[in-house]
Amino acid sequence: MSGQLKYVLDETQIPKSWYNIAADLPVPPPPALHPGTMQPAGPGDFEPLFPMELILQEVSTEREIEIPEPIRDIYRMWRPSPLIRARRLEQALGTPAKIYFKNEGVSPAGSHKPNTAVPQAWYNKEAGIKRLSTETGAGQWGSSLAFAGALFGIDVTVFQVRVSYDQKPYRRALMETYGARCLPSPSTETESGRAILAQFPDSPGSLGIAISEAVEVAAKDPAVKYALGSVLNHVLLHQTVNGLEAIKQFEMAGDDPDVVIGCVGGGSNFAGIAFPYLGMQLRGGRKRRFVAVEPASCPTMTRGKYAYDFGDTAHLTPLVKMHTLGSTFIPPASHSGGLRYHGMAPLVSHVHQLGLIEARAYRQIACFDAAIQFARCEGIVPAPESTHAVCCAIDEALRCKREGKAETILFNLSGHGHFDMGAYIAYFEGKLTDHSYDEGELALALAGLPSVAA
Amino acid sequence: MSGQLKYVLDETQIPKSWYNIAADLPVPPPPALHPGTMQPAGPGDFEPLFPMELILQEVSTEREIEIPEPIRDIYRMWRPSPLIRARRLEQALGTPAKIYFKNEGVSPAGSHKPNTAVPQAWYNKEAGIKRLSTETGAGQWGSSLAFAGALFGIDVTVFQVRVSYDQKPYRRALMETYGARCLPSPSTETESGRAILAQFPDSPGSLGIAISEAVEVAAKDPAVKYALGSVLNHVLLHQTVNGLEAIKQFEMAGDDPDVVIGCVGGGSNFAGIAFPYLGMQLRGGRKRRFVAVEPASCPTMTRGKYAYDFGDTAHLTPLVKMHTLGSTFIPPASHSGGLRYHGMAPLVSHVHQLGLIEARAYRQIACFDAAIQFARCEGIVPAPESTHAVCCAIDEALRCKREGKAETILFNLSGHGHFDMGAYIAYFEGKLTDHSYDEGELALALAGLPSVAA
Repeated sequence: MSGQLKYVLDETQIPKSWYNIAADLPVPPPPALHPGTMQPAGPGDFEPLFPMELILQEVSTEREIEIPEPIRDIYRMWRPSPLIRARRLEQALGTPAKIYFKNEGVSPAGSHKPNTAVPQAWYNKEAGIKRLSTETGAGQWGSSLAFAGALFGIDVTVFQVRVSYDQKPYRRALMETYGARCLPSPSTETESGRAILAQFPDSPGSLGIAISEAVEVAAKDPAVKYALGSVLNHVLLHQTVNGLEAIKQFEMAGDDPDVVIGCVGGGSNFAGIAFPYLGMQLRGGRKRRFVAVEPASCPTMTRGKYAYDFGDTAHLTPLVKMHTLGSTFIPPASHSGGLRYHGMAPLVSHVHQLGLIEARAYRQIACFDAAIQFARCEGIVPAPESTHAVCCAIDEALRCKREGKAETILFNLSGHGHFDMGAYIAYFEGKLTDHSYDEGELALALAGLPSVAA
Repeated sequence: MSGQLKYVLDETQIPKSWYNIAADLPVPPPPALHPGTMQPAGPGDFEPLFPMELILQEVSTEREIEIPEPIRDIYRMWRPSPLIRARRLEQALGTPAKIYFKNEGVSPAGSHKPNTAVPQAWYNKEAGIKRLSTETGAGQWGSSLAFAGALFGIDVTVFQVRVSYDQKPYRRALMETYGARCLPSPSTETESGRAILAQFPDSPGSLGIAISEAVEVAAKDPAVKYALGSVLNHVLLHQTVNGLEAIKQFEMAGDDPDVVIGCVGGGSNFAGIAFPYLGMQLRGGRKRRFVAVEPASCPTMTRGKYAYDFGDTAHLTPLVKMHTLGSTFIPPASHSGGLRYHGMAPLVSHVHQLGLIEARAYRQIACFDAAIQFARCEGIVPAPESTHAVCCAIDEALRCKREGKAETILFNLSGHGHFDMGAYIAYFEGKLTDHSYDEGELALALAGLPSVAA
């Protein structure tokens, strides 16, 4: 075997700016709406939740937004993340395709999430904030914000979806190791939580509920701000550090991706790897394929509606136009693959609506099959979320084999699965099942979409 | 904050040879003895267990032993591992010392163990072996050999100490993800296991018992070989790839360590980082301090005897001269910090006996205190084993502060703690205790040492 495996940039080559796709879109995305007035929300409407610098990023149309040096200084702890050629996987598949992946699992918290947790914590610290409130599902985001909070002396409270809180004590221990406080959601600490518990004392929780709780805490206490790990424009912006690195690394490799793949829950890791390439295309560069992969158990883009909806269950957040399954949608308990959010990042939804990206839904057993094959070739055990990207990359490589095409495939390995081995145990024990929806099931939550004059 | 944090070598700079300290020792180490004859064991005595290439490495006195290209090719998946400057930790401690660590947690299995698992699997594959048998305690070694087996198409059976098998299902899931078969030890599959179970049906197991089982399987079936994750000369040899990298990385950094620290269970990760530096000293280079840190609950070097002893409980292995607590020693259940082996690598024991290295024993609660501080500064959660090295590095940095010395400290972060968060949970819940031995307790297992005309 020959040729380089890892394309590792020096830490001085961490991008100096994030890339903002809003600058290059042919049509601007629909605005967020205030939940009370249903009128376009202004920067002031977000002030109870976010520091002004992040709000300005949320609405900015500048192409490049400078990464402050103190943030680059933290990024250096693990960035640039390696671009790795999956030669053993290629050989096992017998494909003429070349498969590369960015390994975002090398971050301290083990996923791409610190790319935005660190700037969010830093901008809050600069604004004098000492306490942050957030939600987490599987725990990647909660542990990332806990890590970022530890670096800047910010107290972090994490509302973790109860089913994950109970099933994943290791994830909670990681958050506590970083000094955060972690509560099962629904909790008795908020009105939203108490309201749910009154109705469903055994509620397993959902991301939508946990967001309501975390938002409520921030909205009620001026000393507390809120941080969201995906969906919002500024979150996607921060994640572009990854795609920008990939562009440099492919130059090093003397190669160029034909297909760019990422899994989508809220949409941020996909946007992070895809948008810098999509931006080049929008500015007249070559056309590539971009594939967003979601779980068939939470088929937001492939079977949801493109409509205005709330980001949370208690309807405390602004409304955004996005692909959604309805804010009361809860994926089946049989689904272990993360990516459980009912909605999708408005920017990802928008570029899908414009026909610039593809969306695909995968069943979880096939994803774990792919992950096992990947782990045995490349040594890395993917997070359940990331198995979707692995599965799609393998499918694309097998398509190339059938078609006799030597395409270059890039996927984002958004995180490792070390804290999610329970899902692998379920897979080995034959306890994973694939859930299929009939139209009725999906129609239920969608029927509750707010009516907005679009 | 300024100055580089990470010293990352290009994959072309992975060392081309391992370093064999046997070439530079002022006095040769005492030979291993055949367990039947008590006479020095020859290469042939090891043939039932190991392929000849590894046996020749075990007894070699060549200074440099070439790393075959197919092994370097696998090393490239994660090596060279980064040398990282722990600036935030330095600042938190207010020390004039500089603290660096090699992060061996970046390997697929999450520790230094693949450095030897890969060559061991490869040499076996070259010798036509299709099945390997081994033991594991916490699981770092078992998962590393499982990973290496997956790469070379070798079936791996792992006897895991039962208490870990039961308490750490995630570690087992990792081995199974790599395709290995994992059994709780003592098991009913071997005579050694059945003998223990007959006497102690609820035996929690020990490394000594698991080694007996794995050795027995290999000794009885010519199609199966055995692999050991530490202690032996060839294992320590393979680990020197890490220290050799560190030497190049310190050249890059324009710095040079005054103190080199590693935790010791069997001794291999310590030897891997220390021996290349110690070799330079033995060849006339500058003198450095080398500190081997062990748990106070398993104080092999600080309170054991330097004597000939068996490597396992059932006395199937050759006898080696080493620091030992007696082959029937089992650390207390309250000890969660890994490093539970009763003996020590003969080469590490030998250089300690020659006064070339220091040994120190640390209590586990202090180690976890140090690990939490480290994690909140540097983002990385150390494996329970590695917390000992972290604790020692902090102690040395605080000594420098007291003495006003700007020394350079290097420690080996042998692995991450992602699969060991149960120990952190115990720490947070106040359930970790520090075990103290009176002399009587330790004397018991030592009384059973074999009598050998030394």
